[in-house]
Amino acid sequence: MCQLLGMNCNTPTDICFSFAGFQARGGLTDVHGDGWGIAFFEGRGVRLFLDPQASSGSKVAELVRQYPIHSLNVIAHIRKATQGIVNLENTHPFQRELWGRYWVFAHNGNLKGFDPALRGDFRPVGQTDSELAFCHLMETLRQRFPDGEPPREALFALVREVATEISRFGEFNFLLSNGTCLFAHCATRLAYIVRQAPFARAHLKDQDITVDFSEHTTPGDRVAVVATTPLTDNEAWTPIAPGTLLLFVDGSPVDAGPATTSFSEADQPATT
Amino acid sequence: MCQLLGMNCNTPTDICFSFAGFQARGGLTDVHGDGWGIAFFEGRGVRLFLDPQASSGSKVAELVRQYPIHSLNVIAHIRKATQGIVNLENTHPFQRELWGRYWVFAHNGNLKGFDPALRGDFRPVGQTDSELAFCHLMETLRQRFPDGEPPREALFALVREVATEISRFGEFNFLLSNGTCLFAHCATRLAYIVRQAPFARAHLKDQDITVDFSEHTTPGDRVAVVATTPLTDNEAWTPIAPGTLLLFVDGSPVDAGPATTSFSEADQPATT
Repeated sequence: MCQLLGMNCNTPTDICFSFAGFQARGGLTDVHGDGWGIAFFEGRGVRLFLDPQASSGSKVAELVRQYPIHSLNVIAHIRKATQGIVNLENTHPFQRELWGRYWVFAHNGNLKGFDPALRGDFRPVGQTDSELAFCHLMETLRQRFPDGEPPREALFALVREVATEISRFGEFNFLLSNGTCLFAHCATRLAYIVRQAPFARAHLKDQDITVDFSEHTTPGDRVAVVATTPLTDNEAWTPIAPGTLLLFVDGSPVDAGPATTSFSEADQPATT
Repeated sequence: MCQLLGMNCNTPTDICFSFAGFQARGGLTDVHGDGWGIAFFEGRGVRLFLDPQASSGSKVAELVRQYPIHSLNVIAHIRKATQGIVNLENTHPFQRELWGRYWVFAHNGNLKGFDPALRGDFRPVGQTDSELAFCHLMETLRQRFPDGEPPREALFALVREVATEISRFGEFNFLLSNGTCLFAHCATRLAYIVRQAPFARAHLKDQDITVDFSEHTTPGDRVAVVATTPLTDNEAWTPIAPGTLLLFVDGSPVDAGPATTSFSEADQPATT
């Protein structure tokens, strides 16, 4: 299974510490060697670093780990290929423009028999189920709101609706951001932590690295980190309940409407 | 004026040598310190490195210069801001997906009063005239060919038509690629060189670096490099005539129809 990492903050923050642990999962402490990628929003712009090599030996990952890019929203992904060969076009995160903003998406899971009819506004470039799901999501958002981004509650409701629909085809853990907020959908496994004052020390699980956040923060800072499994071994991470869509704004989850994306047996496509 | 650099090859080639000279123009041998970017196609995928800082002091540029990424099509840009502040979202090259392929675009020049009505398929994220022109071009391509990419001659004719149309609003030098070929439009200043056997030594203009291409190539290799002004001082570069659209495939310009994008006085919008 792939690894997801997301960050949403109220002040531009670098992800060097979390990324050091995350990077190790790409071939060192875990077996995911089929490429990796990370997207940093800076204002409305995005820096997207993609590498079809294992992150543990990647020169680009070294740069990302050592070069502090300050961002309000970050999405990273380490790939364990299920559908689509290992190459650059199948490497997450994927990026598209919608309503004059970039949207970034990364998926963990495997969708089977998912073959939506696409209108053509957003077409996959690679062969993954993940990029296809992202294109379907983007198309649905534009189709439903052709004139521009709707208020947050309406946006959340529609993302939840599409997440529920796609979840019928398999495991659909994903992170999604447009630079202003971070959506996190848990199908099976995803956890988060909110770091805020009083800041303490944290120790990585995947590498023997400790950071004292009180030395790097100001009292008003708030940072939410979301990951497939907790990245540190001395902090209390909150598991996200399967079938839940969370929305993170300014470093913490917000209430934007009913979060559950579970579907009942009655919702399942009929089998004849 | 900004600096453009493009490469189109018949075999995946790294751009480290040319980039070393190009990079120096971003704040060292020239005054363009308003950010830079470079896009590498690898198969259908793209690696896009963007940095709103001067390229001569950029850590990301150091990585690009030292880390050989082999690509068939590359587009790079160093910015001298005319419209839109210096930030990430205004940094070229720009990228969009059309017909299931990524398209990459970089512009040198300044368009005045250019304000096309956009349907909404492609909207600018930043504030540059350049990204607006790219969105207009992408929209026109999709509108005219909704079902997918047309044959090369038809594609070339339409890119030329849009280039002519936009050129009425000002200087419109640009590079455009979808990973299979490279379009180069010269409004005022653009030159190219085709390197093929017998390969020789080349010496950069902007840094005292020499490379002997015969040591790094095989006899069948062919590489076209396009730049705002020649990057080397001991090779014969061909200036592209103003008002010309060239199409590079497999490392050399090809004939895909009439290339001129000049327009006569009669084509000018009427002034009342």
